[in-house]
Amino acid sequence: MNNISIKKRYKSRSIIAQVAMPTQANPAGNIHGGEIMKMMDNCAYVTAQKHCLQNAVTAAVDEIEFHSPVYVGNLITCTGTLIYTSRSSMLVTIDVVVECLKTGAVTCALTGFFVMVALDASGKPTPVSPLELKSDEDRKIFEEGRLRYEAIKARRKMVCKLQM
Amino acid sequence: MNNISIKKRYKSRSIIAQVAMPTQANPAGNIHGGEIMKMMDNCAYVTAQKHCLQNAVTAAVDEIEFHSPVYVGNLITCTGTLIYTSRSSMLVTIDVVVECLKTGAVTCALTGFFVMVALDASGKPTPVSPLELKSDEDRKIFEEGRLRYEAIKARRKMVCKLQM
Amino acid sequence: MNNISIKKRYKSRSIIAQVAMPTQANPAGNIHGGEIMKMMDNCAYVTAQKHCLQNAVTAAVDEIEFHSPVYVGNLITCTGTLIYTSRSSMLVTIDVVVECLKTGAVTCALTGFFVMVALDASGKPTPVSPLELKSDEDRKIFEEGRLRYEAIKARRKMVCKLQM
Amino acid sequence: MNNISIKKRYKSRSIIAQVAMPTQANPAGNIHGGEIMKMMDNCAYVTAQKHCLQNAVTAAVDEIEFHSPVYVGNLITCTGTLIYTSRSSMLVTIDVVVECLKTGAVTCALTGFFVMVALDASGKPTPVSPLELKSDEDRKIFEEGRLRYEAIKARRKMVCKLQM
Amino acid sequence: MNNISIKKRYKSRSIIAQVAMPTQANPAGNIHGGEIMKMMDNCAYVTAQKHCLQNAVTAAVDEIEFHSPVYVGNLITCTGTLIYTSRSSMLVTIDVVVECLKTGAVTCALTGFFVMVALDASGKPTPVSPLELKSDEDRKIFEEGRLRYEAIKARRKMVCKLQM
Amino acid sequence: MNNISIKKRYKSRSIIAQVAMPTQANPAGNIHGGEIMKMMDNCAYVTAQKHCLQNAVTAAVDEIEFHSPVYVGNLITCTGTLIYTSRSSMLVTIDVVVECLKTGAVTCALTGFFVMVALDASGKPTPVSPLELKSDEDRKIFEEGRLRYEAIKARRKMVCKLQM
Repeated sequence: MNNISIKKRYKSRSIIAQVAMPTQANPAGNIHGGEIMKMMDNCAYVTAQKHCLQNAVTAAVDEIEFHSPVYVGNLITCTGTLIYTSRSSMLVTIDVVVECLKTGAVTCALTGFFVMVALDASGKPTPVSPLELKSDEDRKIFEEGRLRYEAIKARRKMVCKLQM
Repeated sequence: MNNISIKKRYKSRSIIAQVAMPTQANPAGNIHGGEIMKMMDNCAYVTAQKHCLQNAVTAAVDEIEFHSPVYVGNLITCTGTLIYTSRSSMLVTIDVVVECLKTGAVTCALTGFFVMVALDASGKPTPVSPLELKSDEDRKIFEEGRLRYEAIKARRKMVCKLQM
Repeated sequence: MNNISIKKRYKSRSIIAQVAMPTQANPAGNIHGGEIMKMMDNCAYVTAQKHCLQNAVTAAVDEIEFHSPVYVGNLITCTGTLIYTSRSSMLVTIDVVVECLKTGAVTCALTGFFVMVALDASGKPTPVSPLELKSDEDRKIFEEGRLRYEAIKARRKMVCKLQM
Repeated sequence: MNNISIKKRYKSRSIIAQVAMPTQANPAGNIHGGEIMKMMDNCAYVTAQKHCLQNAVTAAVDEIEFHSPVYVGNLITCTGTLIYTSRSSMLVTIDVVVECLKTGAVTCALTGFFVMVALDASGKPTPVSPLELKSDEDRKIFEEGRLRYEAIKARRKMVCKLQM
Repeated sequence: MNNISIKKRYKSRSIIAQVAMPTQANPAGNIHGGEIMKMMDNCAYVTAQKHCLQNAVTAAVDEIEFHSPVYVGNLITCTGTLIYTSRSSMLVTIDVVVECLKTGAVTCALTGFFVMVALDASGKPTPVSPLELKSDEDRKIFEEGRLRYEAIKARRKMVCKLQM
Repeated sequence: MNNISIKKRYKSRSIIAQVAMPTQANPAGNIHGGEIMKMMDNCAYVTAQKHCLQNAVTAAVDEIEFHSPVYVGNLITCTGTLIYTSRSSMLVTIDVVVECLKTGAVTCALTGFFVMVALDASGKPTPVSPLELKSDEDRKIFEEGRLRYEAIKARRKMVCKLQM
């Protein structure tokens, strides 16, 4: 009874944005990585939910790279894009752009990959809509996502209760 | 003028622990991955600071695996262990153990790796104490950490302003 | 020494977005108006700062209308647009769009107007860049903003220490 | 089955008070208007609930004026007074008094008007008790409230799902 | 250069009030004692600061009694009253009144005693104004406060760096 | 149907730990006592729940002593130990150790006693497991706890609805 018809990538593109607060920083004014990772996870959650219209949880996180420091008062904007879907998993890439409101300078501060799993009402993994693959670029992005997803899946321990 | 004498691993072992709150969960009661990642980052920050006694920031996060779901009311305990040091970087592994306070059941819910960089007062990377390597096990853990650190470093883009 | 050259409206357009949390709702699940007003004010603050590249504070708020209820789990997206500038005041309009992540339904939930004042380092009002008015539509929006601004200014008590 | 007998104004007078925290301020130490608006809305919510003993939501906010800046460490005290009731709406005025704990100086920092609507268990507007009007002053305050309420109601768009 | 002239008790009487939030409760809806103790401490801090117009910290807490449970949605109002002053310490009693906004029922939910110490700019204890003792009741309350203060002081360990 | 077999003390020993944040401090950087008391209460709640595997609430708090100041950036670690059980009450002692992450210095900053009551699903006090008393030291600690518990119980007013 779920809506699992093919869906376009841009339909689930999501933005989460906020101003970095003093309470999120170390004494030197650097925003803690964990605060930004929390925003990224939130954005991945929204992107996944927009696509599958169901509950979704984080199963794995990969290659989060902090390109440049983030400071108190910066505007932090996370953009989530769905790049791959398996039966019930979704691979989401998150880009984090940071703007200094005093100078107007904008930098790409972070990137990362999140594997999200759609869950039904009983907490079991459940099918999601496939991504529409029309152009060659669509297919290339999807294939790169598939390779990354398979690598993450392969390294997961057998004991994991949260199936991807 | 920094204290960069050799230090033992256990000296920096750190614990961060809290009860999972309703405000950290999705409507189904699952704690958002981002909330736990924030605790893990906090624990990595404490572990790194205990070792280097200086300011430290997160440079990269790798292979966070969610083994089992975490629910509202669970006691979440993160343990941070330093496994490798380069000149100014520290690789910290975080284990997250979750206890259900209604049944007493304990599960290992998450693991992950954090690269932390020590910064001096002007925000530049600064040397940290080397880890003491006495036993064969010490050297084995350190060597595994070194391989992981080198792999993370290799994949980082050239544009990164935050040197590892 | 401030940069007060003419600036385009779109340059300061700003987005603040987050998922509505249980801690922001009354027991019936309605998000408190105050939580959304706080996000709107934050968005007005960012919009004003993007335009003037200085500190800014809220001087007055006008005609906040709640068009439809907002619930826990909804994605709340505030968009701020600068519509009028006087010497040191900026009139910002905020639109709040709400998306139900379970159904994908999108509604315009709120609108409101914020008068922001640019302050220099000593806390005194300071000049801001004028808005670029090229098209007839630019001028029409600006003129409507001016009328609203003048009405707000007229009703403010003489005792106000915060000059607009 | 609701208690909708006539009620006195003072019965619903409400106080919400807290010390302004660093996390609520911009870098210059000014408390963000949104933080105080959130407290005002909270106070309006309590005032409305004390009067109608039912769930209540914010439908409109009008003429919030910031008379003087508020700083970190100030004691912020909001007082809510009910000034008008229609069938299911309540107009509440909020006064915000700010005390500097270092000097003891007290200022009236803000005022504003909130239209709150009582909702039954199914989320529909539901009747509230009328206000007792004994003295001439009671009637004057009520009449001024009625004029303001009618003006707010007139300007609301026809599309509003939240009836006042 | 501090103002340490005799002061009246009512001058420092303080109110801190807020609505109990879901995030402050256990799964059964009971507000955690720690949340209310935090409000009480906050109220003691305001009461002490109003009296001494200086920084103040908590040195000891005594006999907090929870008379009745507090639930999500209740209005919690703490009232702080200064009952005794020594050279640089102030004994504050806090009463917590709880109002159910659905029924209007009011109960006295908690009481407790807080010893606050005034600190100068270097963090050392500093003299505070004596309390005005005009009536017999003033003197009786003060004497009871003195006995409690002396008992608390006597049981404190010698190692305490925070002098009372 | 509850598990009320005899239990060992160490089984319920609990740790709650976090880094002190700027938002928890007064302007001079001292962490508010109320913030630490909230952590202590949380730790007492976990300790009590680990022992009784049921809901538990705070009934009384006694003799909280602040031995030394706590500052922003310190690692705060609370350890909870169960020292006495009556039919449905548990007396928990909390030790708070504070570590300066810049110097590595560790101090015992606080101690305190919490009486927690186990509640069944209807909110009524319900029996808890007795503590195992094997060694002489076990019995000595338990007896000291009993004396403190009886003293606290004796001073509680008759009007208390929350039975201990």
